[in-house]
Amino acid sequence: MDAPKISIYDTTLRDGSQGEGISFSVNSKIRVAQKLDQFGVDYIEAGWPGSNPRDLAFFEEARNLKLQHAKIAAFGSTRRANVDVEEDPQLRLLLDAETPVVTIFGKTWLLHVEKVIRTTGAENLAMIEDSVRFLGSQGREVIYDAEHFFDGYKDNAEFALDTLRAANRGGAEYLVLCDTNGGTQVHEVDEIVTEVRKQLPDVRVGMHCHNDCGLGVALSLAGVRAGAVQIQGTINGYGERNGNANLTSIIPNLALKFEREMNCAANIKKLRDLSLYIDDLANQRPDIRAPYVGASAFAHKGGVHADAASKVARSYEHIDPALVGNRSRVLVSDMSGRSSIMMKAREMGVDLESRSPELKTFLEELKDLEFRGYEYESADASFKLLLDKFLHGRKDRINLKGYRAMISEEIHSERELYSEATVKISVDGSESHTVAEARGPIGALDHALRKALSPIYPFVEEMRLVDFKVRIVDSKEGTDAKIRVQVESTDGSRSWGTVGASENIVEACWEALKDAYEFKILLEETGGEEVEKASRRIAVEA
Amino acid sequence: MDAPKISIYDTTLRDGSQGEGISFSVNSKIRVAQKLDQFGVDYIEAGWPGSNPRDLAFFEEARNLKLQHAKIAAFGSTRRANVDVEEDPQLRLLLDAETPVVTIFGKTWLLHVEKVIRTTGAENLAMIEDSVRFLGSQGREVIYDAEHFFDGYKDNAEFALDTLRAANRGGAEYLVLCDTNGGTQVHEVDEIVTEVRKQLPDVRVGMHCHNDCGLGVALSLAGVRAGAVQIQGTINGYGERNGNANLTSIIPNLALKFEREMNCAANIKKLRDLSLYIDDLANQRPDIRAPYVGASAFAHKGGVHADAASKVARSYEHIDPALVGNRSRVLVSDMSGRSSIMMKAREMGVDLESRSPELKTFLEELKDLEFRGYEYESADASFKLLLDKFLHGRKDRINLKGYRAMISEEIHSERELYSEATVKISVDGSESHTVAEARGPIGALDHALRKALSPIYPFVEEMRLVDFKVRIVDSKEGTDAKIRVQVESTDGSRSWGTVGASENIVEACWEALKDAYEFKILLEETGGEEVEKASRRIAVEA
Repeated sequence: MDAPKISIYDTTLRDGSQGEGISFSVNSKIRVAQKLDQFGVDYIEAGWPGSNPRDLAFFEEARNLKLQHAKIAAFGSTRRANVDVEEDPQLRLLLDAETPVVTIFGKTWLLHVEKVIRTTGAENLAMIEDSVRFLGSQGREVIYDAEHFFDGYKDNAEFALDTLRAANRGGAEYLVLCDTNGGTQVHEVDEIVTEVRKQLPDVRVGMHCHNDCGLGVALSLAGVRAGAVQIQGTINGYGERNGNANLTSIIPNLALKFEREMNCAANIKKLRDLSLYIDDLANQRPDIRAPYVGASAFAHKGGVHADAASKVARSYEHIDPALVGNRSRVLVSDMSGRSSIMMKAREMGVDLESRSPELKTFLEELKDLEFRGYEYESADASFKLLLDKFLHGRKDRINLKGYRAMISEEIHSERELYSEATVKISVDGSESHTVAEARGPIGALDHALRKALSPIYPFVEEMRLVDFKVRIVDSKEGTDAKIRVQVESTDGSRSWGTVGASENIVEACWEALKDAYEFKILLEETGGEEVEKASRRIAVEA
Repeated sequence: MDAPKISIYDTTLRDGSQGEGISFSVNSKIRVAQKLDQFGVDYIEAGWPGSNPRDLAFFEEARNLKLQHAKIAAFGSTRRANVDVEEDPQLRLLLDAETPVVTIFGKTWLLHVEKVIRTTGAENLAMIEDSVRFLGSQGREVIYDAEHFFDGYKDNAEFALDTLRAANRGGAEYLVLCDTNGGTQVHEVDEIVTEVRKQLPDVRVGMHCHNDCGLGVALSLAGVRAGAVQIQGTINGYGERNGNANLTSIIPNLALKFEREMNCAANIKKLRDLSLYIDDLANQRPDIRAPYVGASAFAHKGGVHADAASKVARSYEHIDPALVGNRSRVLVSDMSGRSSIMMKAREMGVDLESRSPELKTFLEELKDLEFRGYEYESADASFKLLLDKFLHGRKDRINLKGYRAMISEEIHSERELYSEATVKISVDGSESHTVAEARGPIGALDHALRKALSPIYPFVEEMRLVDFKVRIVDSKEGTDAKIRVQVESTDGSRSWGTVGASENIVEACWEALKDAYEFKILLEETGGEEVEKASRRIAVEA
């Protein structure tokens, strides 16, 4: 292949953490860096040593980090105006970070030179050249980020190009064109990057784009087509405002559509795993609609599509989902035709006759449950239990006799907060009555239920709740509204989703918890491929 | 302006409802159609009469709908192979829908002609031409969707162009090029649409794109640059798999960046309102990172950016947010520098001295609260209360003495589910002890609290809870994990967000509820512009 290899520069830990709701602890930052390295990115921009103590602490720890391939970059700016590089405290902090790579940004746009940093164009060029050269002389690989490049270029192309020439004279490895405000259009990137490549034919150009116009991915790809060889972006598109260019979309486009070489291309099957891992550490709900890696990326609801997809593989899928570690799904909803339900059931190892009366009554039951607030689209385990109950007459192992939960807060000398729950169930014909306490009512119920089950099913001890989501189904009724609870459970090697719905949040949680335990019992009792399909193998940490 | 006007064709109600978790009741469909019409879209594709009873019911009701500008379209397919158009039951259903516009799709890709609908290329062309002509002869405006156009074209360009010629001979108003699988790249759209325009210079071309490669917006815009004059898409990018091309990004790009004429361009200030309204009816959590309309679209967290933005307006904003009905926000987090906190406080009408000891201690307090699980990024009302308490010594109006909540389920002959809560508070020095019941514990607490407050503050009766979100902050601890609850409240004209955090879900809800009432009291007691800024004016329905 003649086209040059593309270098992937990840800035999830720096620019990504500017996103609303995104924040990483030092420990999480270390784990993100290790994961990115395993995936095969080339550069990991990990923070701005001058901006906060957490980033400083990270660089301190990162010195002991053994990475296979990726280089850690510290991020900062050029020296200040009218200061000697040796005297600039911010450049000092960048060197103190002791990273192999230092990335600095400088001003491209005269408006900013004059209004924000308040100096002259000539001094700005000197700031860029001096800073790059100085960092290089200290043994660093230097990457230059031309901030506001496209806006600056449209305002004054010659000045913008001069800033690149200054960085190039200073010895920068890559000159990165930043669409800092995210307002640039694809055809402008085509034209401007082409012109930059003509004016500076011997430099390596990178792209740093944002998603303010919904074009972060397209701008990055347009840059590559015009000759850029480095892409800066973030996993899952985290970042300030609408986010940075999303590497989880750009990487598969480059690998699978453009067929470009990249170091990480070999690991593209781990793309979905990477995406979920980073969401987890950033405490973000995964975007089900994310291109390539989202849970819905290859999910089919429409009767026609589901039907055609069963006739011609790839009819409605632009790639094989397995290429990026994803899979096809059939969604069950009250819009589902018979063929969707049949495919979903087949996914779960149950063959339904298309014209069977069971299918018809099962569909009706499902519609009634959905009307009452249940939703099975992300609760495959509950769907599997329902299917088994309805079609094979499987009986619940856990039979509820009653429960009570009590929360109280009383203020005497100090606050006390306490929940106690009692659960009375029969399992396999024998009754058990347990009580447990916890900080919250759901924890108390969970503990009481586990206490009742573990003598008979010791494997429930492996289980834990990973996440729960609460959604008001009908928001018109305020606190009396119908509430849907989705619970994600794991036993360490698999995870599965269950659902409950009620006007009482504790009851909805109870239903979802109970299904979670029922499913674990089903997994252990049956243990087959069929049941496994209603759960997901989870990423095993390195 | 010479460039032709762009026609906006919305398919939120049809293709959009193929998205995971998206479903509209008949009543919601009517409200969506009215809102889209008010916004000024040109076509509203409202359903597929042949696919489900809900769509049939919609078209029945839609006959009485008085729209100002938009035309309702019914969606379906060409006739079946080897059937007379007059005898085709699906075309009959399309006519029975009695819409001014009918949109039908046909096959472009020989693979699908032969493998999915199992007929010949020649019969496929006849099916297209016959069906378009027949629907036109019945007084319908006919739009032709060329399914899988780009994949079909790459497989066999001549056959793909022949399908367009057949639809054109039949009399279709628009020939819409569909990237059904979403796998096409921007440069391919450039090349192929340019060629289509060369081969069929007198037809009106439309674009129907999906977001499987993260390029839905870019593909649509590339189509327009190559000469397309109709864009099909959905509000908020709902749709099967990764979603359809997002009109809430495409419309502002066309209006503000391309400066193209569109009927809806005049209403672009209502874009964010439209986006939120549709999310609300679809029961979707708004995507804070959505381009142009998301809550984070103009949100600044980075110290440098927030600082520069205060120096040069538009430094880090590519457009004035007010153009699309959005606004700038400063985010408060433990990464916030002093300048972010100061700007946020100024937004709330409080001037903090940059070097003041108050600012320093307030920052420390904030970091401690965030460490304990609180998060203020989307809880402006709680932040305002904290600011007032901390800086002005504002005292809570509601002083808790204690509460109890009790939920029990007991099975005798039938299930009973019941929650009772008691609340003991002092308000303005006088004590009140109330009890209330509801289906759930939070509702019961809410009712008891309201009972206690309404004799003194009758305006609390206007309030209701709109939404609440529950998030496990530290997922390692399962049901004992720290829980954050965010509550959204409204009094009919404003809405505001509050937050609570605890290991007990009921306690976390209680804190968020209490802040919601405190904020309403602050609104009524102070009533000024300053307090209003911590809330949002809500969309008033037509």
